Amino acid sequence: MDADILILTLVLFNCNWLVSSDVPRFVTKYADVALDHFNFVNNATFKLRYLVNDTFWNEGGPIFFYTGNEGDISLFAENTGYMWETAPEFEALVVFAEHRYYGESMPFGNKSLTDPKYSGYLSSSQALADYVDVINIVKKEFSATDSKVIAFGGSYGGMLASWMRMKYPAVITGAVAASAPIWQFTSMTPCDSYNRITSSVFAEMSPGCDRFIKRSWTSLNTVGSSDGGREWLSAEFKTCTPIKTVEDLKTFKDWLSDLYGILAMVNYPYPANFLAPLPAYPVKEVCSNFRNVGSSDKDILRSLFKGISIYFNGTGTAKCLSLVDSDKLGTESWDYQSCTEMIMPMCTDDTSTMFEKKVWDIDKVSNNCFKQFKVRPSVNLVRDLYGGKNIKWATNIIFSNGLLDPWSGGGVTYNVSKTAIAVLIPGASHHLDLRFSNPKDPVEIIEVRKYYKNVIRRWMGGWATMKKEVKTVFAAA
Amino acid sequence: MDADILILTLVLFNCNWLVSSDVPRFVTKYADVALDHFNFVNNATFKLRYLVNDTFWNEGGPIFFYTGNEGDISLFAENTGYMWETAPEFEALVVFAEHRYYGESMPFGNKSLTDPKYSGYLSSSQALADYVDVINIVKKEFSATDSKVIAFGGSYGGMLASWMRMKYPAVITGAVAASAPIWQFTSMTPCDSYNRITSSVFAEMSPGCDRFIKRSWTSLNTVGSSDGGREWLSAEFKTCTPIKTVEDLKTFKDWLSDLYGILAMVNYPYPANFLAPLPAYPVKEVCSNFRNVGSSDKDILRSLFKGISIYFNGTGTAKCLSLVDSDKLGTESWDYQSCTEMIMPMCTDDTSTMFEKKVWDIDKVSNNCFKQFKVRPSVNLVRDLYGGKNIKWATNIIFSNGLLDPWSGGGVTYNVSKTAIAVLIPGASHHLDLRFSNPKDPVEIIEVRKYYKNVIRRWMGGWATMKKEVKTVFAAA
Repeated sequence: MDADILILTLVLFNCNWLVSSDVPRFVTKYADVALDHFNFVNNATFKLRYLVNDTFWNEGGPIFFYTGNEGDISLFAENTGYMWETAPEFEALVVFAEHRYYGESMPFGNKSLTDPKYSGYLSSSQALADYVDVINIVKKEFSATDSKVIAFGGSYGGMLASWMRMKYPAVITGAVAASAPIWQFTSMTPCDSYNRITSSVFAEMSPGCDRFIKRSWTSLNTVGSSDGGREWLSAEFKTCTPIKTVEDLKTFKDWLSDLYGILAMVNYPYPANFLAPLPAYPVKEVCSNFRNVGSSDKDILRSLFKGISIYFNGTGTAKCLSLVDSDKLGTESWDYQSCTEMIMPMCTDDTSTMFEKKVWDIDKVSNNCFKQFKVRPSVNLVRDLYGGKNIKWATNIIFSNGLLDPWSGGGVTYNVSKTAIAVLIPGASHHLDLRFSNPKDPVEIIEVRKYYKNVIRRWMGGWATMKKEVKTVFAAA
Repeated sequence: MDADILILTLVLFNCNWLVSSDVPRFVTKYADVALDHFNFVNNATFKLRYLVNDTFWNEGGPIFFYTGNEGDISLFAENTGYMWETAPEFEALVVFAEHRYYGESMPFGNKSLTDPKYSGYLSSSQALADYVDVINIVKKEFSATDSKVIAFGGSYGGMLASWMRMKYPAVITGAVAASAPIWQFTSMTPCDSYNRITSSVFAEMSPGCDRFIKRSWTSLNTVGSSDGGREWLSAEFKTCTPIKTVEDLKTFKDWLSDLYGILAMVNYPYPANFLAPLPAYPVKEVCSNFRNVGSSDKDILRSLFKGISIYFNGTGTAKCLSLVDSDKLGTESWDYQSCTEMIMPMCTDDTSTMFEKKVWDIDKVSNNCFKQFKVRPSVNLVRDLYGGKNIKWATNIIFSNGLLDPWSGGGVTYNVSKTAIAVLIPGASHHLDLRFSNPKDPVEIIEVRKYYKNVIRRWMGGWATMKKEVKTVFAAA
């Protein structure tokens, strides 16, 4: 797998960077859902996990439904504070549904990803249909047949939330799709967008940092060109497995590239705990080590290591730097999705970003996918299923984007219809808006969170009022 | 299978009642489409037939796309004159796509319906996804990437046309869904609606005819209660296989019930050729034999036979009355669909229709389905997939209903949104509006056909203009 397309996973799967002690307890349940919702070859079902909290719920209130993304659902429940903080006011039932093939919702247990006959049922269409089933089950259990359902999701979960509203508007009244790059697909967004934005974030947070990182690739290549140099690199960066070959060096550089993207994504204004604890504005912190550095390659690389140590060894207890994500399963499932539907081209040229040149080579991706999973990418499937950039028919969706989020380039950044609206948050990174409130939240986050509540209130009350509201608020959009 | 749920099939599958000599020739093509569009278990594909005519097409024109229903696609191409007659004005490319598991589009040839491992891929979701693929292929072939696509369909084809717009609004700009009973499902429409309307049509076309038919069931039961009586019935009605048992008598009565529904459906104002040739207003013709009849059971049954002979033996050449539809395959595929997704409850009480009491017994249906196909009904699947009666979010659909069509009760008979509108045609039967023009067409058919063209023109030009138009035309709706 090309490392680039794992970025979305990495940040999401490990999103327990801030687990608030205020998270209300939820009840864990399991729904029997069809293995395949769109054919009748057999009646196989499997257990899909979902979490329910009815602390705030009163009959007539809505269901706040999180469309789980690529990871253990409890992580999203713990990290989507906005739903918990908003539920009391709406007297909402709160539900978090796990995405099939993640967490405990593995249709074939450990075998789930070993062969297309098991893995083949991992698709966004099937996941959305699972969620419809869970909603039906929950509605029945709570006698909430007439309750409106508001979908929430961040990142891939946000994509799913918006697609739920697009594909099942009778089931979902409205969707809050935070940092959802539904346009990060072939022919929709330039493939260098993600890397350009990441570079801008580094340049903006710490002027010159982008130039230092650009320079560091040369140092890595120079030092890494000899066996001795790679030995030095392994020791200096304390890699858990040594960088022996040029191919290992490439893996290391891919890991670094991904890391910069992740740092930009989680560049939150307060300390957060992501894999290892991170300080507020981690990009700034990392970059602070890149100033006043000697000009030799090894000087540069020593500073580089010092900088990234903030990420991988914030506690000072990490024994070595591992290039492999700890939770294999979730990552592997996303790798699979990146080999079937979620084909998000990533590239960069030599000059316009802080990264080394990268070409998007779909044939190479395809061959790697076949090698790993016996599947090949369906490049236009997402476009065909969900409309691509032609979604002016969509309604009742908030597409929010932090403009410091590398994924914002693939997000919906203009109003596509009167009620499918873009909310741009200048100072925010990846779905900061969905997180728990924090005293350090920038003012625009506080404001958009209030605005979302108004919009949801309008969704609850019907379209006519909403129309007026949007006209006023988004007159200039 | 309960005979009732075959009615939709019977009339559609054999809809070559008027083959106009004006049908332009089409080119027959085959698309390689995925056997399963929603999982990645394997890459199997099969050949889906579609018909293309580019006689009228000019670059920039729309694609008129018929979403094939349960039969050989050439029949629909020959019987959907409205598309052919409208294409020149719009310079439209005309495409008719065959529904999987009908006509030549059998994924597993003769085995296709023998086991769920073959039949399981017959579903509306898969069919819609096939159509998306065909549209992509046609657009590529004709360099028509930017051409808008207008979907057309009658009956189940109309359901599919409307669902195409609902599920793939980026692909389909608007849909003309003629006589599409998308609400003929559980908890959406009273199950006696179809039989009530059929009875009304008979009563209205020929006062007293409904009472005669009501009376005839008693005669059938009285005469049919003895072996000798059933022998008499077999001889009198010239059944191809004798009515030996009480069960045979029930089959015969089911066939008769279905026949009345079919006659109401095709009660066209001009002679048409459906199975056997039918005169104009066949209900009236059939009923004309039910006047001045003696009061004995056998008198009544002799007249009944004379009446229905118009249907089954219009040419006078039929050797016997067959209760089995001639084209087994299409019917069997629809039976299968009626056992999985297309669960359309049918019933009637004792008193309010001209039919005998019929109870909708889902358990019985389910058991029969399991016996025949090894599948069981998914009663709420259509609701979950397409929204059921909650479709106020739908846009750019014409739902037309002839008010003399038994299926109109399960159709959309009010405007569900500003641009998803109901067109009610008082004097029309089953999708008369989509047929070729005929001098005998009632004035309202001529008018709605003009109106459809205006609406399609608005769809082509965008929503703003359309909104105004609808406000004016449907102010009272």
